[in-house]
Amino acid sequence: MHRNPGPESPIGIFDSGVGGLTVVKAVRHALPGERILYFGDTARVPYGPKSQVTIRRYAEDDTQALLRHQPKMIIVACNTVSALALDVVEHAADPLPVLGVLEAGATLAVEVTKNRRIGVIGTQATVCSNAYAYAINRLDPQIEVFSRACPLFVPLAEEGMVNDEATRLIARQYLLPLVGEGIDTLVLGCTHYPILRRVIEETVGPAVRIIDSAEAVATRTETMLMKAGMLASRTEPPVPHLMVSDLPQKFGSLYRLFMDSEMPDVELVEV
Amino acid sequence: MHRNPGPESPIGIFDSGVGGLTVVKAVRHALPGERILYFGDTARVPYGPKSQVTIRRYAEDDTQALLRHQPKMIIVACNTVSALALDVVEHAADPLPVLGVLEAGATLAVEVTKNRRIGVIGTQATVCSNAYAYAINRLDPQIEVFSRACPLFVPLAEEGMVNDEATRLIARQYLLPLVGEGIDTLVLGCTHYPILRRVIEETVGPAVRIIDSAEAVATRTETMLMKAGMLASRTEPPVPHLMVSDLPQKFGSLYRLFMDSEMPDVELVEV
Repeated sequence: MHRNPGPESPIGIFDSGVGGLTVVKAVRHALPGERILYFGDTARVPYGPKSQVTIRRYAEDDTQALLRHQPKMIIVACNTVSALALDVVEHAADPLPVLGVLEAGATLAVEVTKNRRIGVIGTQATVCSNAYAYAINRLDPQIEVFSRACPLFVPLAEEGMVNDEATRLIARQYLLPLVGEGIDTLVLGCTHYPILRRVIEETVGPAVRIIDSAEAVATRTETMLMKAGMLASRTEPPVPHLMVSDLPQKFGSLYRLFMDSEMPDVELVEV
Repeated sequence: MHRNPGPESPIGIFDSGVGGLTVVKAVRHALPGERILYFGDTARVPYGPKSQVTIRRYAEDDTQALLRHQPKMIIVACNTVSALALDVVEHAADPLPVLGVLEAGATLAVEVTKNRRIGVIGTQATVCSNAYAYAINRLDPQIEVFSRACPLFVPLAEEGMVNDEATRLIARQYLLPLVGEGIDTLVLGCTHYPILRRVIEETVGPAVRIIDSAEAVATRTETMLMKAGMLASRTEPPVPHLMVSDLPQKFGSLYRLFMDSEMPDVELVEV
């Protein structure tokens, strides 16, 4: 069905909306020569509050949207899909390799923690799913995980309120209880949160190491492609190929906020 | 098809999610003897960013969910449906009377303003649809409407941050430019916003009259039922009949926040 992908084939990345652009940015930073194919299911965002059956159906659709463009691998930038439907993506994409943002973040956090007390922040849905704690404890059952939902962080990021007193106050309210638990590592378990990284870092202080799952998955991508001899040979950074299922208001300004660059053309696809 | 509804039949109210509970609360306050039937389409919230075709299909589904329980009238508590699909509801519910929250708020604002400068706040989708400005100018083309999207107000309300410094800072950022335009009337064009009414009032000051669309639609409901001889004769406030399409996390605490009372049983319906 598919032609065999080669080193010059694109890396496919999908998310439920715009948040996965932080993963695009991290992958471009780590691997500037790679072609990137991004699908954001902006018509059906957010996935978090939906049932598992629905999320698994969406994960299949999203994977198919990428497969039509012959990627060499797939990165699941959506924490919800990583938690509840990674096997659906693996099955649909077989034999292509699949990396999930959640497992990458959890693995790096386990490597980094010294006192085995890890904080995880995410949306209500991610925190309630307990998926990070599960992934972390599968690697090391001794680690204590302290989770906290931060529902205001996504709209604060989308409003571009990255350096506001209101954001600092809210960050203190969400994060100081975790600091009080003595964590030495904090996982940003939502793709939007890197936008607020500076405020988050200031709030938790220098003793807490921040794990950005987007950066973690970019590092793993690099390692994996290198081992497989599938790194692209380009040196010029190609423009990402963007696909969305609905063109949301403010998409252009969100793109600039997430990517620090002007938005290229966007393809509207039906799912 | 339907039995003829009588004065003791319920008032049907629907919204895309929990926000419409502010309308339930206002109607119960104005008409404590009425039975209330509420449907919140919590599986498909939010409607705002979706296409008009999809919103019109959802409006039909929501109306049918209420019609199965033989209401005597229908209140559209959802600003998005009021703006884009009120005719769909009217057609499906015919010959029952239908009231939309948007028209009720717009009409009251036009009655109240003295200097003909009205502010409207709502979600990005409501503000971009320009529906309040259109409804207001249809009643009085001389009125100047100043709109502002306040995307953080819904999550701040849902977090219960009704008396926080962060909320005050954000309210100032959103509302002071409207006050600077010399408005004398401010429409709360989103069903969540009454939760933050105190902060909003403090921010805009006593010279600006707040129009709560939920209260406005409750007043119109009372007038309409009275004229039609359809007011219920009960004196004991009956427990609302709640239906949702998905049971969201935190539904119980949101219900308490919106209604100031404990949540009754909730029926899960498929749409």
